[in-house]
Amino acid sequence: MTQLDIAKSGRVSKEVRLAAKDEPVTAENLRKLIASGNAVLPANELHKKLKPLAIGQGLKTKVNANIGTSQMNASLKKELEKMDIAIKYGADAVMDLSTGGNIDRIRKEIVKRSKVPVGTVPIYQAFVGKSIKDVTEEDMFAAIEKHCNDGVDFVTVHCGVTKKALPLSKKRLAGVVSRGGSLLLKWISCNKAENPLYKNFDYLLEIAREHDVTLSLGDGLRPGCIKDATDKAQLLELRLLAKLAKKARAANVQVLMEGPGHVPLNEIEKNIKLQKKLSENTPFYVLGPIVTDIAPGYDHITSAIGGALAAYYGADFLCYVTPSEHLCLPNLQDVKDGVIAAKIAGHVADIAKGLKGAQKRDDKISFYRKNLNWKKTFDLALDKEKAISYRKRSKAKKKNCTMCGELCALKEL
Amino acid sequence: MTQLDIAKSGRVSKEVRLAAKDEPVTAENLRKLIASGNAVLPANELHKKLKPLAIGQGLKTKVNANIGTSQMNASLKKELEKMDIAIKYGADAVMDLSTGGNIDRIRKEIVKRSKVPVGTVPIYQAFVGKSIKDVTEEDMFAAIEKHCNDGVDFVTVHCGVTKKALPLSKKRLAGVVSRGGSLLLKWISCNKAENPLYKNFDYLLEIAREHDVTLSLGDGLRPGCIKDATDKAQLLELRLLAKLAKKARAANVQVLMEGPGHVPLNEIEKNIKLQKKLSENTPFYVLGPIVTDIAPGYDHITSAIGGALAAYYGADFLCYVTPSEHLCLPNLQDVKDGVIAAKIAGHVADIAKGLKGAQKRDDKISFYRKNLNWKKTFDLALDKEKAISYRKRSKAKKKNCTMCGELCALKEL
Repeated sequence: MTQLDIAKSGRVSKEVRLAAKDEPVTAENLRKLIASGNAVLPANELHKKLKPLAIGQGLKTKVNANIGTSQMNASLKKELEKMDIAIKYGADAVMDLSTGGNIDRIRKEIVKRSKVPVGTVPIYQAFVGKSIKDVTEEDMFAAIEKHCNDGVDFVTVHCGVTKKALPLSKKRLAGVVSRGGSLLLKWISCNKAENPLYKNFDYLLEIAREHDVTLSLGDGLRPGCIKDATDKAQLLELRLLAKLAKKARAANVQVLMEGPGHVPLNEIEKNIKLQKKLSENTPFYVLGPIVTDIAPGYDHITSAIGGALAAYYGADFLCYVTPSEHLCLPNLQDVKDGVIAAKIAGHVADIAKGLKGAQKRDDKISFYRKNLNWKKTFDLALDKEKAISYRKRSKAKKKNCTMCGELCALKEL
Repeated sequence: MTQLDIAKSGRVSKEVRLAAKDEPVTAENLRKLIASGNAVLPANELHKKLKPLAIGQGLKTKVNANIGTSQMNASLKKELEKMDIAIKYGADAVMDLSTGGNIDRIRKEIVKRSKVPVGTVPIYQAFVGKSIKDVTEEDMFAAIEKHCNDGVDFVTVHCGVTKKALPLSKKRLAGVVSRGGSLLLKWISCNKAENPLYKNFDYLLEIAREHDVTLSLGDGLRPGCIKDATDKAQLLELRLLAKLAKKARAANVQVLMEGPGHVPLNEIEKNIKLQKKLSENTPFYVLGPIVTDIAPGYDHITSAIGGALAAYYGADFLCYVTPSEHLCLPNLQDVKDGVIAAKIAGHVADIAKGLKGAQKRDDKISFYRKNLNWKKTFDLALDKEKAISYRKRSKAKKKNCTMCGELCALKEL
């Protein structure tokens, strides 16, 4: 039984009850959201330490942190540290995108240790160390099954990358920047065959059902620069994914859709609303969006701008972008900076949407700030240690800080 | 003759011609914008090194960096370094907010060295080292005159902080957080007298006219937390400042209006559009806005989110916010981070508004990124050194980076 089966039957599962505790909705309302597919609760029955969490309409905006090795940079210890720091600063989920080292062991350890939902992109593993032409359909499905059997809560599957998309993707300035999308397009081109994840979508649903793994329909054709945003390739895939999402729900498989990418500020609203409309409100998981291409080293900021707006217009799940995006794998500091930037974006959107209780912490910290109660201000800060370190640097001895010194605006007459 | 006099007379000044070179408008159209007061060109005739720059409708969004000493932290050398790094990373203007050390000398040196417009808040100096009750009206005007005679291009004057505002400001969660606003409110309360900058606004116009100093009507009542956003105190001041802006223009004095502050995402559009409407499109200079209060240490990010949206809806001039905001004076790194975050916000808005040429650099960098031409990508990056340092950290030897390694999405088949 998937959470979707249970929710449709009218029963509030234990997981739904637990997840609702952290949300501005009742357990019964969360059940309804899940039953309609407007929310998901990614919870593989084999993921033992999982603290259930829901993603979707009317719920708090969630943040995912991507971790994982590459072939040049593969250490289990480092990835576990990244996971820990990501969760410490508020990541609601992590994705293990490992492609180097002992990939199976890394994934198993991450699932074993994680209390938050874990996602993966199984097909990476199918392609690692092989020529594209040598990868078989069986390799891809075997990887997906293995990940599901290892307790992963959601898997990205790039089902929308099809033969039809191939010529469209070539018209772009930045081409295809999704790793999974690119691998599949190359596979399609090489083998002159249709994308197996699309062609055998029903089989994918069967695999997902077994341990209630949530499908995250990957946007293999997401724009890789703002010029390519909202182009034909992206929209073709969006429409197809929306159809597949409905099909998944009909089979009682929980489903998310993934979205861009690089999008100029003025196109974000349109992008989100279109996805919601076409897919009957399937939870939307966006990467960024990044709103300018000129700031490598600062894409946690460009994506916080885009993410805040996307979440305000209805995106439910923000994939963090770290300062190292486009350049190299993130280190611990990058993971922390990426998580905090994405948490800010999500929180800002929750306030703007008027989510019940979202502004409480802001109002509290403002009260203590006004009263120059530094200790309580720091206790409520998103990153207490950093705030304290600035205060210490100022060498301020009195109540006020060095910004205004004696002319402190907050001092009473 | 002020730039406004000249523009109204139909003549294109040398300064207008030079400023137009960097803008998506012709010199004649810039003249028209200045003549109507929809743009300003802050250029004190005594500021010799100034490279003229215009701020307003249809022009590129500009960024200001605040620098300046406090009584606890006063070094001319450090402030000049801050100015240099701010300009290096794209600050279009700097404000010297010094309140410690040899304030006169610091200001003079900054003006002498700066090629970008320099602003100040003269009344700080009138209050430094004095009890509030001992500060006279003459002290305030003497400070303003001195700054104007020292070649400052624009001055913040908190003319909208009035007796009437006093009770409203007390109803707030965060009170008054503008240093100038707070000093004036205390002075009003202490002396039971009206704000001299409001009462003697005509005299202020005379002073400003003499060397064509642009008045920046300060928002002494800007909200200091999102709870206080768009409240009665703020709106009372906004309406008054809009009237004063029109009065200034009638006297051919160039004028900007300053705005919030802390504003939730969903109130930004309303705030900007109201200011534009009430003030007949007076250029709007906003501090942030910061869109959540819970992120001390990250307010360059919270303000980049707010600033991008504000500029998209029409704010013309963004005052940077550094990571040290609310905590202490910024150091060099904070200044750099603040400038870059604000530049990102402005640039993102310029693209979204469809400003001619705004997206050119994005499209170029995307082309080189797609072709894995790292050198040219870095040349076009907002912060070349930082991007290169990430690339170096990855120890990638081949064309592709460590994010995808051999599975690089951008590699051709």
